[in-house]
Amino acid sequence: MKLASRNDGSRDGRLLIVSRDLARCVDAADVAPTLQAALDRWDDVEPRLRARARALDDGLLAGEPFDAERVLAPLPRAYEWVDGSAYLNHVILVRKARKAEPPATLKTDPLIYQGGGGDMLAPRQAIPLADESWGCDFEGEICVVLGDVPIGATAVDAHRFVRLVGICNDVSLRGLIPAELEKGFGFFQSKPATAFSPVFVTPDELGDAWQDGRVHLRLHVWLNGILVGDCEAGPEMHFGFFELVQHIAKTRRFVAGSILGSGTVSNEDRKRGISCLAERRMIETIEQGKPSTPFLTRGDKVEIELLARDGRSVCGRIAQVVGG
Amino acid sequence: MKLASRNDGSRDGRLLIVSRDLARCVDAADVAPTLQAALDRWDDVEPRLRARARALDDGLLAGEPFDAERVLAPLPRAYEWVDGSAYLNHVILVRKARKAEPPATLKTDPLIYQGGGGDMLAPRQAIPLADESWGCDFEGEICVVLGDVPIGATAVDAHRFVRLVGICNDVSLRGLIPAELEKGFGFFQSKPATAFSPVFVTPDELGDAWQDGRVHLRLHVWLNGILVGDCEAGPEMHFGFFELVQHIAKTRRFVAGSILGSGTVSNEDRKRGISCLAERRMIETIEQGKPSTPFLTRGDKVEIELLARDGRSVCGRIAQVVGG
Repeated sequence: MKLASRNDGSRDGRLLIVSRDLARCVDAADVAPTLQAALDRWDDVEPRLRARARALDDGLLAGEPFDAERVLAPLPRAYEWVDGSAYLNHVILVRKARKAEPPATLKTDPLIYQGGGGDMLAPRQAIPLADESWGCDFEGEICVVLGDVPIGATAVDAHRFVRLVGICNDVSLRGLIPAELEKGFGFFQSKPATAFSPVFVTPDELGDAWQDGRVHLRLHVWLNGILVGDCEAGPEMHFGFFELVQHIAKTRRFVAGSILGSGTVSNEDRKRGISCLAERRMIETIEQGKPSTPFLTRGDKVEIELLARDGRSVCGRIAQVVGG
Repeated sequence: MKLASRNDGSRDGRLLIVSRDLARCVDAADVAPTLQAALDRWDDVEPRLRARARALDDGLLAGEPFDAERVLAPLPRAYEWVDGSAYLNHVILVRKARKAEPPATLKTDPLIYQGGGGDMLAPRQAIPLADESWGCDFEGEICVVLGDVPIGATAVDAHRFVRLVGICNDVSLRGLIPAELEKGFGFFQSKPATAFSPVFVTPDELGDAWQDGRVHLRLHVWLNGILVGDCEAGPEMHFGFFELVQHIAKTRRFVAGSILGSGTVSNEDRKRGISCLAERRMIETIEQGKPSTPFLTRGDKVEIELLARDGRSVCGRIAQVVGG
């Protein structure tokens, strides 16, 4: 089942069910007015949403054309946005770029940061950038939406808490990161609003590509129309989403609608390309002594899409222009 | 005007107006079902809420007794929980305790961390603590609830965005902090759920104690019934809430209902006592070579209250027992 939030001028949008091929949609606000409301009482509403999704996919419901330009982020305000950094190749390259060491516990203790969930960008919304010298970068990631997670939840149980899967662009301001991390309290100004795919999908939509809390599909990333990343999101996700859930729930609970990110999808094989510019700049530095790719400037276009094995889009395309 | 959220078994509770003396309350769910809903359309609902609050205070509405045991946190789920560390005395003492240097920009660049807002504890809710070796500590703080804050908001304009003022207990797990900060991404497991006062109040409730984005009143903290802190919350708040708003809004916007904390209230004058145990332990280390006060253990009781100049409680008392 695929779900989206129509932009109806409200803060949270209006719940939509989208067809498997992303071509059509049908309103579901009578079942739950918003995606957050659906997640709040998921066990009650899921059967009714699924029945309608089946009717839409089977052609029993005509619906209307689905327009990714007219949706908000599936959760335009989320109660939690927590982002991992589970692809070790990314951690190693990016730390090298800022002349910092990877943590000693790189392979045993997940890297996670607490993001802000109040302002989630729509898939086609411009990336606000007041100052190009801040070093604006994209980060293509997989994310999951959780149901209610009790304190002390374990990785073994975590599959029960994953409601939806999507992708996101965790925009980063590279130029602001070193000074901010130097202060010791983590990211803040260096992590502006994150953008999300037009739809989020239930894990069953992924078939056997959803395995062990990992999405075994390719994430495509385009910069100004050129494919720059074609990374496998599955095998190199060192900590899967189930391990990340165990990590975040160690000392507190999470409410339904919390979003958990994978960190930048990254492969050791350089032929696969990149899901963020910082990696490319580090590779250039290693190979040529200095980076030649600039960070994003106004007018640049970033597109991110998760592809099923048959080449079809799983959750629609993020397509953002860097704005003023 | 004082507002609270009655625990009616729902996720967000039911909006209550509380009398100035905290003795009585009246339901306001017909005006806005929840505090978040009121904040979402504040300009529309504020006049109606204020009219009812006046009627309650003037005795024209009888209302019913207000019971702080029967409320949730005013915002049981908040879209953002952002916490500063604006009392420099606290920063200096706590960093000394973990043998870390204060940042070089201590006095010019606010220290802020992004917390998680999904799970806010009620004022009388137990502090969950699975493992006493984590070094559980309280932190008595002032907080404000913001309206919609545009990206790039300045300190000069920030007074327009402060909707409500309250207090909180930013529970910290001191034993987990050093290893977590060592990883470079800030706090996560070391910052479990935060608890909030029974009511939040509009800034006018503070009279001239609300000045320059600071609350010029005393914060009382009791541990197991003994007053351990009687700090002035105003003069030593190096960055006021208006400066903190400017800092957080530099690269993204904030939605109505975002909560911004002051950091642990702390005074240089040691006679004023402490608002967290880490400070006392550091003072003991300086004076006696080692700390003698243990961190919290199960059954310990922490109480925090903001006192008006006439000695009356501004927003009710946080009173939490450390639980299992």
